[in-house]
Amino acid sequence: MSMKYETVSENRSFGGTQGVYSHQSEATGTKMTFGLFLPEEAQYGRVPVLWYLSGLTCTHENAMTKAGAQEWAAEAGMALVFPDTSPRGEGVADDEAYDLGQGAGFYVDATQDPWKPHFKMWHYVTHELPELVSDNFAIDRDSMGITGHSMGGHGALTIAMTMPERYRSVSAFAPIANPTDSDWGRKQLSAYLGDDDTAWAAHDSTRLMEARGYPGEVLIDQGSSDQFLDLLKPEAMAHAMAKRRQPGQFRMQPGYDHSYFFVQTFMPDHVMWHAEQLAR
Amino acid sequence: MSMKYETVSENRSFGGTQGVYSHQSEATGTKMTFGLFLPEEAQYGRVPVLWYLSGLTCTHENAMTKAGAQEWAAEAGMALVFPDTSPRGEGVADDEAYDLGQGAGFYVDATQDPWKPHFKMWHYVTHELPELVSDNFAIDRDSMGITGHSMGGHGALTIAMTMPERYRSVSAFAPIANPTDSDWGRKQLSAYLGDDDTAWAAHDSTRLMEARGYPGEVLIDQGSSDQFLDLLKPEAMAHAMAKRRQPGQFRMQPGYDHSYFFVQTFMPDHVMWHAEQLAR
Repeated sequence: MSMKYETVSENRSFGGTQGVYSHQSEATGTKMTFGLFLPEEAQYGRVPVLWYLSGLTCTHENAMTKAGAQEWAAEAGMALVFPDTSPRGEGVADDEAYDLGQGAGFYVDATQDPWKPHFKMWHYVTHELPELVSDNFAIDRDSMGITGHSMGGHGALTIAMTMPERYRSVSAFAPIANPTDSDWGRKQLSAYLGDDDTAWAAHDSTRLMEARGYPGEVLIDQGSSDQFLDLLKPEAMAHAMAKRRQPGQFRMQPGYDHSYFFVQTFMPDHVMWHAEQLAR
Repeated sequence: MSMKYETVSENRSFGGTQGVYSHQSEATGTKMTFGLFLPEEAQYGRVPVLWYLSGLTCTHENAMTKAGAQEWAAEAGMALVFPDTSPRGEGVADDEAYDLGQGAGFYVDATQDPWKPHFKMWHYVTHELPELVSDNFAIDRDSMGITGHSMGGHGALTIAMTMPERYRSVSAFAPIANPTDSDWGRKQLSAYLGDDDTAWAAHDSTRLMEARGYPGEVLIDQGSSDQFLDLLKPEAMAHAMAKRRQPGQFRMQPGYDHSYFFVQTFMPDHVMWHAEQLAR
């Protein structure tokens, strides 16, 4: 069965098209919205694609408008996908805190009530949306990279380390790097996955780095003036990468904070780096 | 008397600093907020500066977060200033329409009630804010360019043609090019300047182009799929530029609309073009 979608908007951007589309998701049981940038090259054949996972409170829109990725995706002839960060709407569980529930799906498949019926962001991002996008647009599913910011950096790293055969390049901006040991993590993982923390390790990139690493190179940027350093725990990931002798780079960027000004600044490096990795 | 300002925020960006500052304006009689990007080079001496004037409904923030200019300003070692588009707040006249009053100052000095007391955006942008910025930050007032989008393109072109000795480079994105002959213009110019349209010509870039032109090169980009083509009247400006033999370029960009996706796409060209003009 071919999945249906609706076009919300399409804007010409850097010679390509920045689209916003919505569809009824089987994974979440809700209407989901995503952004997709297709470079000019997609008119002539399938192109590599970089997935960008956003952070807490974001929708599909934040990075699409503020991260400055299209310029470099156009340069590299690469598509970009900007998924939403959770299911939304009436009948979907929520919490009054900004960091749980809607806008805070944490890229896991919830097993606990009240989240279980809709909060299936792992499956949505890694299976349903890739299928919908490759069924309907000229993207090459054999040439996929993944990145993200904060909660989205956590998602990108955990997804890539779990399915390295599908995600052939990975990077992250200020990822929530060690959620099993942070208030950005313990709260959400216990809500979504239950109090038994053995289920949590699969969603902690530092622990995945310790246990298995990634077969390619890993690029992580972190601002030294990030206001959330205590919650992100970059030192745990840096330690795990170095101890494993993981190929790649962990870059501490002096003076940068957690904002999109940080993300924008290093986006050119990340996009071009994914293009290089995927061309290998 | 040295003018005072307050720091609202500062974020590291592309090796420089994206700041937001506020101050009590004498011109408008209100508290005004502006964005200022300083490249790394500003630590060592005064740098050229590009003024970016925003369009209807915008504040200082829209282009600062969505136009993608900092990357190229950093590359060029150039500062960027993002003024607000009008005075704001209680006691400031407003209109329920999006295109009159707060958020729609049109870069003129109002002579009519109820706008006269606060709507002095021409003076604010061309005199007060340049003085404040150069008194307090490392920008070179002898090396200033100006650009803008839509209403801001109108502002940039009219200001540069009126004061070419102060604005040594000028460009525009989809400017309101002929406001004396458009519903984006006649309404605002009559409200702010009165019904006698002899006062309007000084604020119509097509008429200024016909009357005096600009001593340097002019760069204008316009999207062919802009949803506001009937209001912008680019053909009037293109005609005036060609008839005058104005050095420069008027570029019709196929498929682009009026959004920031359009602005982003051509921002690299504009910033680097200003840098070249100012280096002459």
